[in-house]
Amino acid sequence: MAQDVTRPSLSDALTERVLELIRAGGLRPGDRLPSARELSERFAVTTPTLREALRRLEATGAVQMRHGSGIYVGADLERVVIPNPNFRRLQADQMLQLLDARLLIEPPLAAMTARRADPADLDRLGTALDQAGRHLEGEDAELDTANRTFHRAAARASGNAVLGEVIDSLLSVHASEQREILRIFDDRARDHDEHRAILAAMKAGDAERAEELMRAHLLDVKSVIESRLT
Amino acid sequence: MAQDVTRPSLSDALTERVLELIRAGGLRPGDRLPSARELSERFAVTTPTLREALRRLEATGAVQMRHGSGIYVGADLERVVIPNPNFRRLQADQMLQLLDARLLIEPPLAAMTARRADPADLDRLGTALDQAGRHLEGEDAELDTANRTFHRAAARASGNAVLGEVIDSLLSVHASEQREILRIFDDRARDHDEHRAILAAMKAGDAERAEELMRAHLLDVKSVIESRLT
Repeated sequence: MAQDVTRPSLSDALTERVLELIRAGGLRPGDRLPSARELSERFAVTTPTLREALRRLEATGAVQMRHGSGIYVGADLERVVIPNPNFRRLQADQMLQLLDARLLIEPPLAAMTARRADPADLDRLGTALDQAGRHLEGEDAELDTANRTFHRAAARASGNAVLGEVIDSLLSVHASEQREILRIFDDRARDHDEHRAILAAMKAGDAERAEELMRAHLLDVKSVIESRLT
Repeated sequence: MAQDVTRPSLSDALTERVLELIRAGGLRPGDRLPSARELSERFAVTTPTLREALRRLEATGAVQMRHGSGIYVGADLERVVIPNPNFRRLQADQMLQLLDARLLIEPPLAAMTARRADPADLDRLGTALDQAGRHLEGEDAELDTANRTFHRAAARASGNAVLGEVIDSLLSVHASEQREILRIFDDRARDHDEHRAILAAMKAGDAERAEELMRAHLLDVKSVIESRLT
């Protein structure tokens, strides 16, 4: 029995019970769960079985296991969509489809963000751009992270959390090929200025301009990628 | 050591090695992997450790374990985004955000589908609607499945696989509350007629009309849900 790895798993039920424990306890992302020992005892299972359930939950962002510290509720528990954690390499056609997907979604979200113009959200966007500004001459990875933070935060500030998750997922793809192309051929300063102009339109509450500038910006990115791929 | 459930896991590396095995072998969704015994031997690990890695991959759709049959490459391996497998209950505000997300994405995809008008895709859409037609008086669950198949296939037929995955993920949410509301208050026949009209516009290659009809259809769904929630 122990050798039949495909048998319907105790960890299916156990995964469900851990989720119930989180939900019934009203636990939020970052909250700490009982220790592994307590969980094993509570559910009357062995450590390997508990571990199997926890690793499944970890793979999908529902829990976070910090070595030597404990088990915490993960940030992705209540999300509708998540990035595929097994995804590795973007094919050329997927790279362009990804940009087309962003082109469809991000400009209207930029308009929504401009319409809401929540001061705390706009501050966060400004902070991300200041961060990017400090890395214009520096490390690619840090500039890239700051720029993605800007796009993620702009989508989330639209007020539609589901679409925010979609954009977050699309930006989570390990697009090293895309980064490489942009590193060599893109104009970092122009890119940064475009981000600044989008934020200025949002701050001015100019929805139409925010949408138009976001579209033009993504079309710029797309044309750089497209010209190197084809 | 065996008791420290949070220690950096051997299964992290093992998960990666199973994925490498799939990729290096050029295996496609539905292809069979070596048996659990062979995998344990090849990677020199115990069954519980192998099982942990496989369950993680299963939770995210990268492999499928069929009881008594074996281990297969899963359908979601190459996807960019996946539905959150831990998601359980849609809150009222998420339900409306979900519909707004679909309203933003599905109408332009309907236009793209009409422009491409791939005969095999259009046949699939027709089959889904025939299926739905047979269940108009029947079981809710079967009608619901057929209707979702239509929306999924319409998005996929646009030619943008990434956006197809996004819509697939949004439709995978266990929206039992949404189904319940529609079951009681929606007009099944009208809903079906709207699907038929969308497909007719796609078949006629009328992108503008397909987009407009899809938008009107989703607005109908939204207004039913909205009027019951507020």
